[in-house]
Amino acid sequence: MTPSAKMTADLFQLDAAASQPLYRQIYDRMRGAIATGVLKPGARIPSARSLTKELGLARGTIDTAYALLVAEGYVQSRGQAGTIVTPDLKVGAPVTILLPRPGAEAGDSFRPDSILPFQMGLPALDLFPRKIWARLGAQRARAMQPADMVHPPVFGLPALRTQIAAYLQVSRGIICTPSQVFVTSGYRHTLTLIVQALLKPGDQVWLEDPGYPPTRGLLTQMKLAPAPVAVDREGMVVSDGLRTAPKACAAVVTPAHQSPLSVTLSLPRRLALLDWAHQYEAWIVEDDYDGEYRYVSRPIPALKSLDRDGRVLYAGTFSKVLLPSLRLAYLVVPQSQVERFEATIQTFTGGSPELTQAILAAFLNQGHFARHVQRMRKLYAERRAMTVAGLQSVLEPSFRIDAQPGGMHLILRPLDGRSDRALVTRMREAGLYGEALSDWAIRRDGDASAVLVNFTNVSSREAAVVLAERIRQLR
Amino acid sequence: MTPSAKMTADLFQLDAAASQPLYRQIYDRMRGAIATGVLKPGARIPSARSLTKELGLARGTIDTAYALLVAEGYVQSRGQAGTIVTPDLKVGAPVTILLPRPGAEAGDSFRPDSILPFQMGLPALDLFPRKIWARLGAQRARAMQPADMVHPPVFGLPALRTQIAAYLQVSRGIICTPSQVFVTSGYRHTLTLIVQALLKPGDQVWLEDPGYPPTRGLLTQMKLAPAPVAVDREGMVVSDGLRTAPKACAAVVTPAHQSPLSVTLSLPRRLALLDWAHQYEAWIVEDDYDGEYRYVSRPIPALKSLDRDGRVLYAGTFSKVLLPSLRLAYLVVPQSQVERFEATIQTFTGGSPELTQAILAAFLNQGHFARHVQRMRKLYAERRAMTVAGLQSVLEPSFRIDAQPGGMHLILRPLDGRSDRALVTRMREAGLYGEALSDWAIRRDGDASAVLVNFTNVSSREAAVVLAERIRQLR
Repeated sequence: MTPSAKMTADLFQLDAAASQPLYRQIYDRMRGAIATGVLKPGARIPSARSLTKELGLARGTIDTAYALLVAEGYVQSRGQAGTIVTPDLKVGAPVTILLPRPGAEAGDSFRPDSILPFQMGLPALDLFPRKIWARLGAQRARAMQPADMVHPPVFGLPALRTQIAAYLQVSRGIICTPSQVFVTSGYRHTLTLIVQALLKPGDQVWLEDPGYPPTRGLLTQMKLAPAPVAVDREGMVVSDGLRTAPKACAAVVTPAHQSPLSVTLSLPRRLALLDWAHQYEAWIVEDDYDGEYRYVSRPIPALKSLDRDGRVLYAGTFSKVLLPSLRLAYLVVPQSQVERFEATIQTFTGGSPELTQAILAAFLNQGHFARHVQRMRKLYAERRAMTVAGLQSVLEPSFRIDAQPGGMHLILRPLDGRSDRALVTRMREAGLYGEALSDWAIRRDGDASAVLVNFTNVSSREAAVVLAERIRQLR
Repeated sequence: MTPSAKMTADLFQLDAAASQPLYRQIYDRMRGAIATGVLKPGARIPSARSLTKELGLARGTIDTAYALLVAEGYVQSRGQAGTIVTPDLKVGAPVTILLPRPGAEAGDSFRPDSILPFQMGLPALDLFPRKIWARLGAQRARAMQPADMVHPPVFGLPALRTQIAAYLQVSRGIICTPSQVFVTSGYRHTLTLIVQALLKPGDQVWLEDPGYPPTRGLLTQMKLAPAPVAVDREGMVVSDGLRTAPKACAAVVTPAHQSPLSVTLSLPRRLALLDWAHQYEAWIVEDDYDGEYRYVSRPIPALKSLDRDGRVLYAGTFSKVLLPSLRLAYLVVPQSQVERFEATIQTFTGGSPELTQAILAAFLNQGHFARHVQRMRKLYAERRAMTVAGLQSVLEPSFRIDAQPGGMHLILRPLDGRSDRALVTRMREAGLYGEALSDWAIRRDGDASAVLVNFTNVSSREAAVVLAERIRQLR
């Protein structure tokens, strides 16, 4: 039996009575077959059409499963030639680019000039598909026509908006039209636009405590009143917000992996938050900066996918899943708010550069993005495990290492009562990056001494051991 | 028969009695031959001279048709080597710069999706050094290293800030250090940052009346109070501002070529404005969007070059002198305000893309920018003269054409009492761009009916005549 025929036979075992929908079962089995090597890179898989016939299922069921597989880069459609398992599907040998550099200067907290080990907010730089990117960049630069030289469409290149909408549907469960998607130059730009369009000075805004400091800084600077809301193992404690600031006009949340605790906002909390927004006509800003990076199961659909009342503004970015240097992010607004955002954006912005948008649109369109995200998810799972193992072998029991199911960093908790700020200062002196959890807290409870360290650029257990040794030697 | 000979034979079929003028028939057939592939990219087409002879037509007729084809990018003149079909022409997606498109929709006033004849705010697109730009773009894309993949320096690439500071000293008489130069994503971004750093809601701001509408829109949206100040032949009437709003906190001016009247702010007015700012501790925002483009003498040094007290914020942009699609502009702040702007920029922005900044820095560093500006100054002087001549030959005495010593547009004044808004509406219906001066006025005095038309993309007197004919025929 050919692998393809075996696959088809296997798919006859689907269970229509199972809690998992059928498309998901098909997807899981296909993915399993590919992961275990039953289906090899380059192998043809049955066409959606023939599978529909053989299994006696609705065409839509098969199409959904295949769309997921394509979106995640497992398979590629070759038109007439059929659908095949992605030929170059593999994880390359990691290159260590982040050797500890003793004496390197500590840069600005959030916008470093130099790259240090453990540096926060960076994707793996060694495995970015630079050649593909450079080829697309050179192609786009050479293809420039007069129409590409004028003011770029201020809401974003149409091709890019379309690609983002399609990606969000498949990967984050968000149904939106391209006209709801606005391309921005980063999360701060997105957040500024939301404030400009929907909020006014003095408005209260729920913020996760602890939470991403730039969010608080920007909102304070724009004269809004941050209302800190506690975070526990289920994410933002919505009841805390309801008790302390029920009449807030907005909430900024990081549902996928809370920033910085990496916990996931539970379903009951998601529903409570949406209820509050509905009842008080408040806005929810979903900061989904790295929702793709979950390692224990499939990424969880975005909060926005549950938004029935049009209260959620979805902020996505290519900084974490692709490159910070791109300066491309996006904002999805409820249909009812499209015109308001169009007016705001026309007033305040001139759009993002044509060139970077065109390269990115091609990167998405040709399937490179889906493949890249999928590879990174696998790579980060490995690097996370290696980093945890390396750190634990050296630093336990003086430290406890929290590894949450998703995100790009670990939480290192000193168990000897040391202050995280003092530790971070010493780490910076030793050429290591780290951020003190205390600096992310709004209300200083004082019981949360911990250091945030990024693992995406730690390429081996040995590298983690070397870095851990440096930490252990700090006094 | 060669394609070129076949083309010539085809052109013998022209119909002098048809309602379409002959130049238009020639143009249509040539364009058709290119679109259908009869004439391939790179193919030589008959010279205007030989065609004139063979067809027995007036040279002007052929020249007009060829001028349109060149202007729209279908063919290129290679001097002695003759005229050829544009080598890298994407067949099927023709480049349309100056094709009058009857019934074309009027886009957004300031950020059009399509390029129409007379379109405001655009540099000459046909003579941009695309090959050099593409080469630098391809080089930079290929040279990308991990350090270029992280967050770009938020104040701008150091190499670019240095180049801009050097350029401003030589070309605009401004002495500043690179640390005073902040790279932004456009004039609106620059203006937003200035408001965020230095002004507060309710502050009065002097604005030129008439003046650039987006400035007023943005400031109003940010809750500032615009105070209109009249403009005469010497630019902003400072005494008018002193009389009506002496305690304003800032003034936005366009000293080089007032936008839209293109008059230059006189030296006495410059000094009076600086005196006022000094006395009242007000800020002056110098919007120097096209200060390079002066045709009767050397460009006049920037107002900023006279700023002894550190009251002038200088807003420059590469949109007009290079490309709007770049989304790169800059802001020079007084030394005393550097820290304040650093804080504001760190709060609100994530910087501009690494790639476009790196290409631009190389373009400046290798001297291409200086050469380009010099060439454009010469080219625009020619196009301005040709456009004026072409328009005058058709439209006088129904219109008066104001040509100021600088800028990128002309002012077309209907002398028959027609409303400029009605005229602009008809022009848009006929596929021509134009903006009504009335729409740039804050206080409606009602005596200033005029249409603003850009000349930088009008490539010959003949093209101007064709366009003027279309205006003349409007009812």
